[in-house]
Amino acid sequence: MPETQIQTQTRDRILDATSELFRRQGYTGTGMKQIVANANAPFGSLYHHFPGGKEQLGAEVIRASGAMYFDLVMGIMSVSGDPVTGVRDCFAGAAAVLEQTDYADACPIATIALEVASTNEPLRLATADVFESWIDGAAMWFRGHGIGKRQSRALAIQLIISIEGAFMLCRALRNTEALKVAGASMVAAVKEALADSA
Amino acid sequence: MPETQIQTQTRDRILDATSELFRRQGYTGTGMKQIVANANAPFGSLYHHFPGGKEQLGAEVIRASGAMYFDLVMGIMSVSGDPVTGVRDCFAGAAAVLEQTDYADACPIATIALEVASTNEPLRLATADVFESWIDGAAMWFRGHGIGKRQSRALAIQLIISIEGAFMLCRALRNTEALKVAGASMVAAVKEALADSA
Repeated sequence: MPETQIQTQTRDRILDATSELFRRQGYTGTGMKQIVANANAPFGSLYHHFPGGKEQLGAEVIRASGAMYFDLVMGIMSVSGDPVTGVRDCFAGAAAVLEQTDYADACPIATIALEVASTNEPLRLATADVFESWIDGAAMWFRGHGIGKRQSRALAIQLIISIEGAFMLCRALRNTEALKVAGASMVAAVKEALADSA
Repeated sequence: MPETQIQTQTRDRILDATSELFRRQGYTGTGMKQIVANANAPFGSLYHHFPGGKEQLGAEVIRASGAMYFDLVMGIMSVSGDPVTGVRDCFAGAAAVLEQTDYADACPIATIALEVASTNEPLRLATADVFESWIDGAAMWFRGHGIGKRQSRALAIQLIISIEGAFMLCRALRNTEALKVAGASMVAAVKEALADSA
């Protein structure tokens, strides 16, 4: 295998391992030694690929895992072709994943977003970029289903709020009741918006 | 001043300082030295009052600040005597506090709840107890306004989800749009529930 390909693989393994650790234990609680151990990478490779250290790695992980998570969620929402079913599938899918992973595998950037909001401006900006792109992307999705511009933006924000808020309750309480409540409320909001736009 | 009174004051100062630090920078990012410095307390007093160390202190802070925050929020919601106005006041008040504190002063247990959900079972249980008590208390409030039992519980969960999810977006994006969206959506849900119960 050419050396550049090996290096890309090491870099990707570091990003994947870091994303997994951040999701479960947050930014502050994740150490560099744990990252290289979980990535099965030599310690030196971390600073080779991320000369800015943990902060650079953190910002890249936030952006990369934020984009990946959005694609995953929008993919699930788009399977049925119907926005009401799509939103219902999104919350049901999130509940299923939480249960299957013992309530560990939720949003990859939520914990970090709260940790850094008042403590680390470069990382706060990375989370802001991710949330902005989610709002814009989800709003475009609602508009694609014939809902007006202003209402699509509000639904997009409500969707993200509902998922993030419900994840917090579900993970703390170890049950999926909050995702069921949030899903039902989002489904009602989407139905109403569709009726308004009809 | 009697010695027991001084000790109570030291204990309270430690709890207050810790709550403030947890709210802004989370559990993992807060060190014992920073706690005693901010509490203006001798280092030894920390282990005198909290022999279980940071974990015991963390659990007590979660329970105490969770109860205090709930009283604060329900107090604001109850001023007007009308549930629709109460919910509107709650989100408007939260937005005002966020702006006044440069987006630092949000829910005291949200960051910790995500940090500990998969990493520290005693603290996870403390956050679960707080969320349960919030759900029960808010549901009772909605029932007191004539809304049925099942719907009151759903509204209570939706209220907490909306506040927590909106805080996350607002703190990351440094604006209050998400709290406005969440507030409007909660107000609509309460109006609908009141109409159903009339």
